[in-house]
Amino acid sequence: MDRGAAPTTSIARSTIDKIYVRGADLVDELIGELTFTEMILFHLTGQRPSRTQTVVLDAVLVTLMEHGITPSVIATRLIYHSAPDSLQSSIAAGLLGVGTTFIGTMEGCAALLQEILEAPEGAQPRARAIAESHRERRRPVHGFGHPQHKPDDPRTPKLFAVAERAGVKGNHIAALKLLSKEVDSAFGRHITINATGGTAALLGEIGIPREIVRGIAVISRSAGLVGHVLEESRKPAGPFIWHTVDDAIKYSDEI
Amino acid sequence: MDRGAAPTTSIARSTIDKIYVRGADLVDELIGELTFTEMILFHLTGQRPSRTQTVVLDAVLVTLMEHGITPSVIATRLIYHSAPDSLQSSIAAGLLGVGTTFIGTMEGCAALLQEILEAPEGAQPRARAIAESHRERRRPVHGFGHPQHKPDDPRTPKLFAVAERAGVKGNHIAALKLLSKEVDSAFGRHITINATGGTAALLGEIGIPREIVRGIAVISRSAGLVGHVLEESRKPAGPFIWHTVDDAIKYSDEI
Amino acid sequence: MDRGAAPTTSIARSTIDKIYVRGADLVDELIGELTFTEMILFHLTGQRPSRTQTVVLDAVLVTLMEHGITPSVIATRLIYHSAPDSLQSSIAAGLLGVGTTFIGTMEGCAALLQEILEAPEGAQPRARAIAESHRERRRPVHGFGHPQHKPDDPRTPKLFAVAERAGVKGNHIAALKLLSKEVDSAFGRHITINATGGTAALLGEIGIPREIVRGIAVISRSAGLVGHVLEESRKPAGPFIWHTVDDAIKYSDEI
Amino acid sequence: MDRGAAPTTSIARSTIDKIYVRGADLVDELIGELTFTEMILFHLTGQRPSRTQTVVLDAVLVTLMEHGITPSVIATRLIYHSAPDSLQSSIAAGLLGVGTTFIGTMEGCAALLQEILEAPEGAQPRARAIAESHRERRRPVHGFGHPQHKPDDPRTPKLFAVAERAGVKGNHIAALKLLSKEVDSAFGRHITINATGGTAALLGEIGIPREIVRGIAVISRSAGLVGHVLEESRKPAGPFIWHTVDDAIKYSDEI
Repeated sequence: MDRGAAPTTSIARSTIDKIYVRGADLVDELIGELTFTEMILFHLTGQRPSRTQTVVLDAVLVTLMEHGITPSVIATRLIYHSAPDSLQSSIAAGLLGVGTTFIGTMEGCAALLQEILEAPEGAQPRARAIAESHRERRRPVHGFGHPQHKPDDPRTPKLFAVAERAGVKGNHIAALKLLSKEVDSAFGRHITINATGGTAALLGEIGIPREIVRGIAVISRSAGLVGHVLEESRKPAGPFIWHTVDDAIKYSDEI
Repeated sequence: MDRGAAPTTSIARSTIDKIYVRGADLVDELIGELTFTEMILFHLTGQRPSRTQTVVLDAVLVTLMEHGITPSVIATRLIYHSAPDSLQSSIAAGLLGVGTTFIGTMEGCAALLQEILEAPEGAQPRARAIAESHRERRRPVHGFGHPQHKPDDPRTPKLFAVAERAGVKGNHIAALKLLSKEVDSAFGRHITINATGGTAALLGEIGIPREIVRGIAVISRSAGLVGHVLEESRKPAGPFIWHTVDDAIKYSDEI
Repeated sequence: MDRGAAPTTSIARSTIDKIYVRGADLVDELIGELTFTEMILFHLTGQRPSRTQTVVLDAVLVTLMEHGITPSVIATRLIYHSAPDSLQSSIAAGLLGVGTTFIGTMEGCAALLQEILEAPEGAQPRARAIAESHRERRRPVHGFGHPQHKPDDPRTPKLFAVAERAGVKGNHIAALKLLSKEVDSAFGRHITINATGGTAALLGEIGIPREIVRGIAVISRSAGLVGHVLEESRKPAGPFIWHTVDDAIKYSDEI
Repeated sequence: MDRGAAPTTSIARSTIDKIYVRGADLVDELIGELTFTEMILFHLTGQRPSRTQTVVLDAVLVTLMEHGITPSVIATRLIYHSAPDSLQSSIAAGLLGVGTTFIGTMEGCAALLQEILEAPEGAQPRARAIAESHRERRRPVHGFGHPQHKPDDPRTPKLFAVAERAGVKGNHIAALKLLSKEVDSAFGRHITINATGGTAALLGEIGIPREIVRGIAVISRSAGLVGHVLEESRKPAGPFIWHTVDDAIKYSDEI
């Protein structure tokens, strides 16, 4: 089989006494010099992050980190109960839940915003067309609606305020607000921009590549899940979760 | 089966218009107010982090994030090639490598430091006993030695300097330096304190619970792996890795 | 939040001295009475399997189990090297590679066969339309082509022969052969039906639900990966794989 | 870094028109000729399996496959709900639960049986010593006890009967029965040999290597989990599980 030309990497290299990440000396230029969030931006973009980028990414990472007892958290706690000597397994199990159902809407919303921003016919007609086609197909619009936070998700306005205060250009946020107006109009009622929508706009503002928008959620959730493992190690809920679920789902011969 | 008393959680709760994490209002007190690193500390300890804790945790997270083409990175890239629509799977696969062989030594070193700090006979005799018993059993000491960085791992002194500058108490670092002296003496040659040892000491200084020391590495590595997924999406190495390995491992009838 | 009506399960239940799976007494009717393959069929369909179903599923599971040094195998071996105390992690890491790139084509082919079999205009026109539309879009047809096995994948005719000898109805195989003829005609050259295509047809013949076609590959590959873990535990390749890949992928400043 | 001598593999190789697994021609000698269970044994041992080995492994795989709503099943169902387009992720998440808490006891029991069989002072004194030391340390003996199946796990006698009927040598089963007698005597009450104990003895009888005893459970459970994914795709329980658990675990300010 042809293995093709050898690919290269531009991420890291090391010598006996030096380690370079993205061309910078890890020891002299990065450790103790950058925050973790700045380092993430530097790793993902290869550029020293601006203050605006850092503030905005911090806000996104803080927002997505913790949501209480979610499907991911339940999976993590049960796997930690089953394999307590393998902490990384429990985090990995929970992260496998950062998929299309929940976080996928962040990617979906990012795609809609990009579509609106690049529409040759102009942003507003495209936003209207998107809202109306979702309405016709009775599909939820990615980044809109929340089962609990009604009429409005309290996180979204704060995310916008932080980003604006930090000096973003504002075009992704504007596109999302435009889409919001058209969604309300097409559906004939107010549907909140949720936190997934808000974070999608913010990541667009700071130039996070579309391919890894979901990865930002993975990083943030990994920290949230570590917190749940710590609580699980001190106040084990695993057996209780197991038996509660086993009791609640009854057996039935009908398939 | 008895499911036991219902456990509680102290991490998060929400109402229609409020979300609380660790008792703080997510929107008013956390988003835009804390960095991601501060939020991790707040999540894990339930206390507002000091500047010292934040600086030290940032240094640890920056140090552990990226090591070039590691086993975890190779696993992540191959799984991304195999299931590109499931980014979270590729990160999870790589994180499953944050196990005993590499990062486990961080936990092991943290345990040695705690043993030294709590030894009723005093720190120095215990450090000597540890070094000598490892020497006798010809076992490597967790946190010591590096296959490439000889005679010294350049990250360790920087980690110590950052922590000292940030105002840590210094007892874990002192215990590690004491152990280092005894290790050199017992083994009859200089063996470097590696980055795993250095980060173990720093996490001890800022009170990260032993149960989740490995979790800090998981958080940091998750960001490193997202960077490799981004590069993989642009310069695919998966097929090349596959065929290179397949060519290099020859078939043999001898089992 | 509304949690909806309580769902039920029809899979298993137990009392103090009895365990029932799919309504059968595990001890009296299943252990020692069914082979593993028969038990899988019983679990998935709720019906005692016919001899035809069992023979065909055995052939599929044997075919998919082992392919030498694949991306999944490399991931499994590297994670086993990194966390040897957590065998299940290494298998899980490899199984995460049973995704769209390789095994997904099995699902895709199964979908094409169903489309052909249910086409109101008849099977042949639909097979032709599928082949031609793939040709126009220069897309590979799921279940066709193999980088190494040219002109023909040797597994496919054997799979057909086993299924026919076992007495399948034959309509999925016929649909695949029809599609093959149209593919060759549309593309103007012979493109082999590969093992993924062959197994997709066989699983259709025995009524494996489309939703879990990929799951059959997961079961089979899990056994293949366990074999690689055993070899890895005796002849470790992990460090060699790592350093071979690290040497082969050069650093470049160009991003 | 020295990558060491190139390791070899003895598992599979292929040419343009041939695929060999363990030296046998996959098409001519394995597909349609071996059952999946026979193929697993051939893959793991490199030897054509005896009828005894096959019958015993089938019994073990049938026994371990399905246990109703377990922690692994709950994790699998929640991850399937979160990422329904990535079936392999949901199975991988559940398999990460095949760890020390549940299945690890199978490995532990296998180790005890080997210790008894190889004891220079004879099997009975060693069995007694093991039972008594566990009693003194108030530790459960691996392979003994069951929270629900009292006084006896109904699976164990059937497993023994199947193995004896299949013609095993019987020394591992005898060692387990010996240990059982000593356990009852040391603890002063009857403690059942559970299915984990029974399967450990059976795998010893047919020469499954200790390193991969846990892997046999992984293979069997993967099939069980696929069945739960199928049910989940038809009668979704994920959201119900989530909200049931979220309701049951109350928030408390006390940490």
